[in-house]
Amino acid sequence: MSHSHKEHRSHAPRELGFFVITVSSSRFEKSRRKEPIIDESGDVAKQLIISSGNKLEGYSLVPDDKLMILKSVVDALCKENVDVVVTTGGTGFTPSDMTVETLRGIFDREVEGFGQVFRSLSFSQEEVKSASYLSKATAGIIRGKLIYVLPGSPDAVKLAMSELVLPEAGHLVYLARSER
Amino acid sequence: MSHSHKEHRSHAPRELGFFVITVSSSRFEKSRRKEPIIDESGDVAKQLIISSGNKLEGYSLVPDDKLMILKSVVDALCKENVDVVVTTGGTGFTPSDMTVETLRGIFDREVEGFGQVFRSLSFSQEEVKSASYLSKATAGIIRGKLIYVLPGSPDAVKLAMSELVLPEAGHLVYLARSER
Amino acid sequence: MSHSHKEHRSHAPRELGFFVITVSSSRFEKSRRKEPIIDESGDVAKQLIISSGNKLEGYSLVPDDKLMILKSVVDALCKENVDVVVTTGGTGFTPSDMTVETLRGIFDREVEGFGQVFRSLSFSQEEVKSASYLSKATAGIIRGKLIYVLPGSPDAVKLAMSELVLPEAGHLVYLARSER
Amino acid sequence: MSHSHKEHRSHAPRELGFFVITVSSSRFEKSRRKEPIIDESGDVAKQLIISSGNKLEGYSLVPDDKLMILKSVVDALCKENVDVVVTTGGTGFTPSDMTVETLRGIFDREVEGFGQVFRSLSFSQEEVKSASYLSKATAGIIRGKLIYVLPGSPDAVKLAMSELVLPEAGHLVYLARSER
Amino acid sequence: MSHSHKEHRSHAPRELGFFVITVSSSRFEKSRRKEPIIDESGDVAKQLIISSGNKLEGYSLVPDDKLMILKSVVDALCKENVDVVVTTGGTGFTPSDMTVETLRGIFDREVEGFGQVFRSLSFSQEEVKSASYLSKATAGIIRGKLIYVLPGSPDAVKLAMSELVLPEAGHLVYLARSER
Amino acid sequence: MSHSHKEHRSHAPRELGFFVITVSSSRFEKSRRKEPIIDESGDVAKQLIISSGNKLEGYSLVPDDKLMILKSVVDALCKENVDVVVTTGGTGFTPSDMTVETLRGIFDREVEGFGQVFRSLSFSQEEVKSASYLSKATAGIIRGKLIYVLPGSPDAVKLAMSELVLPEAGHLVYLARSER
Ligand SMILES: [Mg+2]
Ligand SMILES: [Mg+2]
Ligand SMILES: [Mg+2]
Ligand SMILES: [Mg+2]
Repeated sequence: MSHSHKEHRSHAPRELGFFVITVSSSRFEKSRRKEPIIDESGDVAKQLIISSGNKLEGYSLVPDDKLMILKSVVDALCKENVDVVVTTGGTGFTPSDMTVETLRGIFDREVEGFGQVFRSLSFSQEEVKSASYLSKATAGIIRGKLIYVLPGSPDAVKLAMSELVLPEAGHLVYLARSER
Repeated sequence: MSHSHKEHRSHAPRELGFFVITVSSSRFEKSRRKEPIIDESGDVAKQLIISSGNKLEGYSLVPDDKLMILKSVVDALCKENVDVVVTTGGTGFTPSDMTVETLRGIFDREVEGFGQVFRSLSFSQEEVKSASYLSKATAGIIRGKLIYVLPGSPDAVKLAMSELVLPEAGHLVYLARSER
Repeated sequence: MSHSHKEHRSHAPRELGFFVITVSSSRFEKSRRKEPIIDESGDVAKQLIISSGNKLEGYSLVPDDKLMILKSVVDALCKENVDVVVTTGGTGFTPSDMTVETLRGIFDREVEGFGQVFRSLSFSQEEVKSASYLSKATAGIIRGKLIYVLPGSPDAVKLAMSELVLPEAGHLVYLARSER
Repeated sequence: MSHSHKEHRSHAPRELGFFVITVSSSRFEKSRRKEPIIDESGDVAKQLIISSGNKLEGYSLVPDDKLMILKSVVDALCKENVDVVVTTGGTGFTPSDMTVETLRGIFDREVEGFGQVFRSLSFSQEEVKSASYLSKATAGIIRGKLIYVLPGSPDAVKLAMSELVLPEAGHLVYLARSER
Repeated sequence: MSHSHKEHRSHAPRELGFFVITVSSSRFEKSRRKEPIIDESGDVAKQLIISSGNKLEGYSLVPDDKLMILKSVVDALCKENVDVVVTTGGTGFTPSDMTVETLRGIFDREVEGFGQVFRSLSFSQEEVKSASYLSKATAGIIRGKLIYVLPGSPDAVKLAMSELVLPEAGHLVYLARSER
Repeated sequence: MSHSHKEHRSHAPRELGFFVITVSSSRFEKSRRKEPIIDESGDVAKQLIISSGNKLEGYSLVPDDKLMILKSVVDALCKENVDVVVTTGGTGFTPSDMTVETLRGIFDREVEGFGQVFRSLSFSQEEVKSASYLSKATAGIIRGKLIYVLPGSPDAVKLAMSELVLPEAGHLVYLARSER
């Protein structure tokens, strides 16, 4: 680790508050009908947040609907204890996938490298390979808080969280909140 | 009125639900300190909505803060009875003015002509003239609902509401919700 | 007329080749079913082109379909004798209106002032007034040729053609083709 | 004049520092060959600045060349006494016109209404009329300073300066420099 | 392969219709002069399409010309049997290279990850390495059909087709055409 | 190396003129106070330029200030002997980092692949890994000259210069200046 990366990380907040949002019309419909639902990707995100020593401040499940995605993310960002919002789902190329297009509109700054590095990393996974380019996963900063927009596959969530999100979120929060 | 404009207007909803949002840090601070506040521009909007036979579904007062502007507008759009959101304030060129930049990010489509026609109309007002170009007032459509982003001056709100918003909002809602 | 406008106009081509494209799903469907169709806006455009001493190089009728709009416009632009393409229809805010969004993507340069001046001019018409802001009419330049994207109303076509398109198209073609 | 416009204007700096830049390849070439040049549009701008009680901090003449336009504007903006840069020329649709495209890239914020109001105002001039839509004149703010990007015609410069630029520049500088 | 990737691929169309377009002014000129031409990159694309069990619906050769690129691509997309258009050439940084800039304007959605993953993959090829960043190769979706915009080098075409395009095109077509 | 890459490189200028600009408010302040400064990243860039047989045409140190970044880069680009400008610093996510946002506005064309390939390459470095996505490093072309916008870390500068910039700059200059 270079001097500068080490130094920055030591200034990062010890513990971050995360909010997890699963974007899935099918699971949302089941939940509205009070049917039992399995939200594997949301569960993976939550478990990794907790086991990494961070705090899970909340969770919500929304359908692939622009207004409901916006509402859930903005509500989460308005909570004082939330530093990072992680969404899963809706990053692909079906007509109903719109998480990326919706959230990009509210970023102060896009972390343009996140999606690129995530896709390169995914490409190197034997079971993903070329399918890596079918995700628009990205990340952004808004008012000193982070939004990571992850795919809906539990494997992708696990890879992104453990290799990219959790190792850098504290550092990035620190950078985004530093003095001008 | 051309045949086509007449015909469309007859298909418009009789009565629309409006939600008014005043964006003003100074008034918001006063209201937080429980001091009496005068919100002239918000009052003008509300009165014209009611006197034109439409319905006022709600009102909120927020500071010039990106997240609070987003939250108030998205919350309003999520109410089933709300067809049109009208914001006043934050459309100018001080560093704290950010209503237009914030809301543009969530439009499905910008009604690009609204701001232009409003500024031309303002220019023709003797007491505005050249100051007309100092406003970024605009409008947009999101999921079949309208957002009008008006300046904070009561005169500007009155002009925009009576000459442009109220005469066309029903028509535009009808168009935006028509079958593909 | 200022010296410079006069001078430029004298360099403009004497006679321009126009191609008219009507974008209307309803008329296209009728025409496919071999029913008689009235295309008033297309007819207005054609008549004004001819009566102004320009040449009508062709005409087509297409539905509100992105690929068919693109195909008809690109085919027209590829004809050597065509200098100006005029489309009518699909400039409003119904979900099926997509002419402006489709054609903006292929402009080399947008003539941003055209739509604005057209809407201001429309606003001054007693029978249009506030409805003027419901059109996204625009114009653009591509490889030295012009595309005017007009609304579907015959009155709007007449106003735009006689007051804005025909008086300046020759001048604008001359400018767009001048030496770098 | 509304209360708020009046009040703001009273806070505006009494005297602004202007820098005029003429963008014209033909005049630049003459000047390089030490031939006498007439720069009518630059002269009009300078005279109106001085006669309105503002200060002319400098002037330069550059060709229609992206790097030289950028250099002259950035150099002017870096002078402490310069509050407003006015360029004339290069706002049209010949392939060599690139002032607007070049300067838009460095704006912090575009004053989108300026060009629109200017074109509407030009349209109302008997000797301009439809030619008004052939200009991309615009304005922008960068680090609390203003850039007005005007056409090369002396009549257009006179109209823009006297009716729009000079009446509002002080007000706009005040707004752009106010506290966040 | 993750469960979800496997499942999606099983829903993909068995056999896709491809259309290959070579963009090269030099080869186009030769072909116009009836001289023998070798189009190695086009040949590589065609062979891989056929040997992978897909169908070659057509081929065209166009110069580096915006209108001819647009015409060839739009014509191909209008053919009912064409699911995927593959272009080769014009993705670099010479002034005449314009395939990417031209086609981006007509995408409904850009497959932003394609170019990134392709460049990472190219970087890992010993004979490409740093030259990988000199290509703007990309892909997009338009009305449920795909456009892959590949470089003109036969090696690049072979790499992109065999490692990225052919393994995922069916899957991506399936996604892009799924119900909203 | 493919035939085409080899051939192009043989046409590249033998020796390029580089200009190095360090963007760092802290070092700039020290230098203004006449204190000794260490500019490791600038030094790395200079040494690699010289040892690779290219020419160092100049160097400047500027603070994280939009106008001063623009001025230094535009001044460098205006020097006839400068082919490539390399900036270091200001590519991250602190509020004061603005080098990328500032310079993107003046590019004729962005070399979009540069940042992506650089981040992938950084990710493969054991001491960078996930931190690779925290840089917005990019590159662009303006009037046949190149701008590489590198991070402020000396290791990042060394990696980018030796693996990506120096191997391809001559080739890219050759491409960018070739006939249309
Ligand atoms: Mg305010
Ligand atoms: Mg229609
Ligand atoms: Mg080529
Ligand atoms: Mg720094």
